[in-house]
Amino acid sequence: MSECKVTFYPEGKSVTVEKGEDLLHAAVAARVYINSSCGGDGVCGRCRVIIKKGEVVSDPTGRLSDGEREKGYCLACRTTVKTDVDVEVPPESRLEEEQILTEEAKVSRLAGLYSRAEEIEVISEGKESLFTHSPLATKVYLELPPPTLQDNISDLERLYREIRRGGDIPIMQTGLANVKRLGHLLRESNWRVTVTLGKRNGTVEIVFVEPGDTSGKNYGVAIDVGTTTVVAQLVNLNTRQVLSTKATHNIQASYGEDVISRIIYASEKDGLERLHHAVIDCINGLISSLVQEHNLSLNDIIAVMCAGNMTMTHLLLRVDPSYLRREPYVPTANFVPVIRASEAGIKTNPRGLLSCLPGVSSYVGGDITAGTLASGLSDSEDISLLIDVGTNGEIVLGNKDWLVCCSSSAGPAFEGCGVKCGMRAVKGAIQRVEINSRYEVKYHAIGEGKPRGICGSGFIDSLSELLKAGIIDRSGRMKKGLETPRLREGEEGLEFILAWEQEAEGDHDIVVSETDIANLIRSKGAVYAGVSVLIRSMGLRFEDLKHIYIAGGFGNYLNIEKAVLIGLLPDIPRDRIHFIGNSSLTGARQAMLSYEALNKVKEIAHKMTYFELSVDPIFMDEYTAALFLPHTDMKLFPSVGEKLGL
Amino acid sequence: MSECKVTFYPEGKSVTVEKGEDLLHAAVAARVYINSSCGGDGVCGRCRVIIKKGEVVSDPTGRLSDGEREKGYCLACRTTVKTDVDVEVPPESRLEEEQILTEEAKVSRLAGLYSRAEEIEVISEGKESLFTHSPLATKVYLELPPPTLQDNISDLERLYREIRRGGDIPIMQTGLANVKRLGHLLRESNWRVTVTLGKRNGTVEIVFVEPGDTSGKNYGVAIDVGTTTVVAQLVNLNTRQVLSTKATHNIQASYGEDVISRIIYASEKDGLERLHHAVIDCINGLISSLVQEHNLSLNDIIAVMCAGNMTMTHLLLRVDPSYLRREPYVPTANFVPVIRASEAGIKTNPRGLLSCLPGVSSYVGGDITAGTLASGLSDSEDISLLIDVGTNGEIVLGNKDWLVCCSSSAGPAFEGCGVKCGMRAVKGAIQRVEINSRYEVKYHAIGEGKPRGICGSGFIDSLSELLKAGIIDRSGRMKKGLETPRLREGEEGLEFILAWEQEAEGDHDIVVSETDIANLIRSKGAVYAGVSVLIRSMGLRFEDLKHIYIAGGFGNYLNIEKAVLIGLLPDIPRDRIHFIGNSSLTGARQAMLSYEALNKVKEIAHKMTYFELSVDPIFMDEYTAALFLPHTDMKLFPSVGEKLGL
Repeated sequence: MSECKVTFYPEGKSVTVEKGEDLLHAAVAARVYINSSCGGDGVCGRCRVIIKKGEVVSDPTGRLSDGEREKGYCLACRTTVKTDVDVEVPPESRLEEEQILTEEAKVSRLAGLYSRAEEIEVISEGKESLFTHSPLATKVYLELPPPTLQDNISDLERLYREIRRGGDIPIMQTGLANVKRLGHLLRESNWRVTVTLGKRNGTVEIVFVEPGDTSGKNYGVAIDVGTTTVVAQLVNLNTRQVLSTKATHNIQASYGEDVISRIIYASEKDGLERLHHAVIDCINGLISSLVQEHNLSLNDIIAVMCAGNMTMTHLLLRVDPSYLRREPYVPTANFVPVIRASEAGIKTNPRGLLSCLPGVSSYVGGDITAGTLASGLSDSEDISLLIDVGTNGEIVLGNKDWLVCCSSSAGPAFEGCGVKCGMRAVKGAIQRVEINSRYEVKYHAIGEGKPRGICGSGFIDSLSELLKAGIIDRSGRMKKGLETPRLREGEEGLEFILAWEQEAEGDHDIVVSETDIANLIRSKGAVYAGVSVLIRSMGLRFEDLKHIYIAGGFGNYLNIEKAVLIGLLPDIPRDRIHFIGNSSLTGARQAMLSYEALNKVKEIAHKMTYFELSVDPIFMDEYTAALFLPHTDMKLFPSVGEKLGL
Repeated sequence: MSECKVTFYPEGKSVTVEKGEDLLHAAVAARVYINSSCGGDGVCGRCRVIIKKGEVVSDPTGRLSDGEREKGYCLACRTTVKTDVDVEVPPESRLEEEQILTEEAKVSRLAGLYSRAEEIEVISEGKESLFTHSPLATKVYLELPPPTLQDNISDLERLYREIRRGGDIPIMQTGLANVKRLGHLLRESNWRVTVTLGKRNGTVEIVFVEPGDTSGKNYGVAIDVGTTTVVAQLVNLNTRQVLSTKATHNIQASYGEDVISRIIYASEKDGLERLHHAVIDCINGLISSLVQEHNLSLNDIIAVMCAGNMTMTHLLLRVDPSYLRREPYVPTANFVPVIRASEAGIKTNPRGLLSCLPGVSSYVGGDITAGTLASGLSDSEDISLLIDVGTNGEIVLGNKDWLVCCSSSAGPAFEGCGVKCGMRAVKGAIQRVEINSRYEVKYHAIGEGKPRGICGSGFIDSLSELLKAGIIDRSGRMKKGLETPRLREGEEGLEFILAWEQEAEGDHDIVVSETDIANLIRSKGAVYAGVSVLIRSMGLRFEDLKHIYIAGGFGNYLNIEKAVLIGLLPDIPRDRIHFIGNSSLTGARQAMLSYEALNKVKEIAHKMTYFELSVDPIFMDEYTAALFLPHTDMKLFPSVGEKLGL
């Protein structure tokens, strides 16, 4: 088979592929990250690229207008190469790299504008000190007494003896590789060495031994392995200081937006391999970038702690996830013993350790147990709720004595997917919306530049404002005949224009359509119904909740008042509702820094009872009842009724 | 550089080597095992071969007569190849393969002839049942309940849960490789699997999981890794049945006879690598042959337990042994955690486990702790002694409360090395000698064929008989002028002919020379002096010894009466002296079959106190005093004095 060279612009990155390969796969191979919500099924229309040179074959698609086709647009996933080609990837089709946190720094100045919007980990930072400092890996500098005829125990015993002076360690392990080097090493270093000790599954391992005192160089990376975004945080394991945080899109998104499409893709030829490498590439890119920024070497990274949902954890470890989505929905492993990071392909010190936080079930993973730890929910007498509004919409209810959880399959609407102008909470995303009684719109986009789309918190604001302004009714339907050019009939029905094409970065208006609203209502309804099921199952009422912790994918800001108004959150006193940001990352860091915290996560995973909503008889009723704004039963939302004048 | 083809006869095995390579290395490469006591230094003269064709360059040597040189004899270690060559390896220059045990079967019929000569492990077989049956690796067949919506724990937890029904296992570990295969495996096997559990350093590891019930196929190999001989025993781990035992010469002998010469060789370029591969090749050969004999596959071998001295253990694991012989004589590791056999290059089930028994010091290794276990010495109130008369002459004294030990550097004389007609206890070795008052000789050679040399027990008999017959005096000097043609002046001084050339297999008389006798006296003196130092250091007398256990390299028979007569063993009631054969192998098997026994060996290694004789002030006095037959102080040997009429 002949080969074709594909060059992606504006980067100019080239890759050689076989004739007949599609442009989406070629882009992944070239490390050019193209949007794709549907995983290459030709459905979402997000992977639009422009052919500048060369011959391609494109399948017919309704996702492109005639005008676009004339300009050379095609869908990367439906287009295969016939010759060498030059391809331009327009900004709206890109998965932005490492933009998320750069933008975070800018928008944080605006934090005060939003009610109860708090910076990531404001709550959890305080909790860190609750756990003893005992990281996954520690370094100890030792000055050993050289052997004499009177004190002639073996080198390894001498090392053990000195280590044990620091504390009782019943089971100590050392791999053969370390033993082989030990004799020379101890003598060459004049019996002054630094030993890295790792905590592995109830035992302590001598991870490696180095000459001299390197105990100051002891770093770890905590990672939130999200379906959409991977966030990594470089931490000094000695001082617990967070050095910096970087994020990137999970490249796996090129193979499917949500976990179900990834699980399906994993069952295809080479699918598991591709998904595994995609996420490992993301992680390696982040670690490498963190290390460079701080003038460290990969050898200084001796621990990695990952928190991810069950699918992400399976794929990270290259474990087939297919049984997660087949009844009775069983993971291959809820927990995996600590391994070497290199075993999973993660580049750190070659002997560095990797731990993945344990999960509860196929749809409640290590990100949620980490979040439960970080929220402090399981430490308190008070009954509290944790809601992670990501694609799965996981919910945890309980206190220090008991924990129940469920996954509401909310769908990715609040992460900007499955909605026309949805996008992730990165530069150009509208995250704050106000609409006045004359239907005039004020919005704020992340990065303060021109808007490109709408992110989760922007949609919550939009729904709330559209409802308050009377543009939509409580069922989410738009009221025809309003005197504003912003309401119009679009391709997929009625739509409301938040930003006109001339204000926006792309070549179209930024709109919220009736279809989008139905999608968003389904998402919020699923979350609310999940909460209701857990509360009712435990014989509780919403008033019994002392705290609601909100984590997840809205970007870093959430207008809690508006989230209650649309019925995403229950109508309880607002001071009980806390936005805790990326609690998965916080929990991972805590577990990396404290063995006590890690054991606590295991305990949380162990004692949490999972409710499978798909077979729960009352879930469907609760869900249907929640498909209104805020709810069919207004008695549940008295403050909202008042506000809407009902 | 040009290459030459070297062919060894009578096998006809060929190997291609670089021009200039010596024949000893070429033989190792061709897997033809040639004797070499000195490790290729041209000193011992044992590696004599005959050049049949081709050109070689030989260094001058005093080890060959002119007649031999004319016949084409040369020393393999001092001869390099110039062209393709054909080389004949005469029988006396061979390391016999797997002959040791074949012969054992035959000679065992004669066991009754010798006072207290007992078959290998007669004592230890009884002890086996003292330990609970809990092998290094076990197999458990499990029928798992398939998951349901109500019972939807992960596959790995399901496996753990079922395993834990069989007993409390606090720490269980599983490698990533097993986790990756688990999901498919459990379902394809309809939830019926066999789990192999290994005991690893205080935890239990899931070694591997197989479909169906394979729990019946559970085998291990216990190995005595000796400096001279490697003995392997195939054991059914379920039934504790010994299936068979095979032995081979340690191919390392081509690089040096004793541990010191091997340690020196290991420091040369590629030396460590060569020694490591040599012993691993031996072990793999034995395992493969055991497996074939019983129609098993290597996959059925899931545990290997090795007992060897510290040098052998270091080389087996490819750990540099050089510090063992530098003051203060420190091993790199007295114990090495359980690893996979494949990590050391041993071919078994790819995930099979390897454990090496822990030693005490540089010159008291796992073979001695194994022997201590097997003898039962450390289980009794009685104070007993264990003597392993190998090259090192290790001695253990103690009871259940305390243990002391030393290594007397006896030298390899009783293993047939460093003595003119010495050989190992294989076919053709004279192992029993009687000399009457007319200086007539009766002898018995192993295998009942013609004699080729003299092994350890043959030398003990010879010394004793020569002394009783008045041919040598108590200092070991021969009495000139006796009326017998058997006493004559040889190349290296006076010598006594045990077997004439015409009775023997080779082309020379089989003799014991005055030099040999001096060597043997030094060996027995070192052992006796070591025993004395330990006894005196503990404030004891010989009468306090309730048992003396003799292990090691005499072949399988030892005339205890004669061993006392020459002063190798102290003069205590004979019923307190027991010959226990290869106690290193017995101990290894016991430790492989019982975790309790393995822990006991660790305890033995931990509590044994090592006496370094080379720096002990009284050792030299004791040694000098013991350089007589039986001793300078005849009060210590009253029964011998009586027998000799002194």
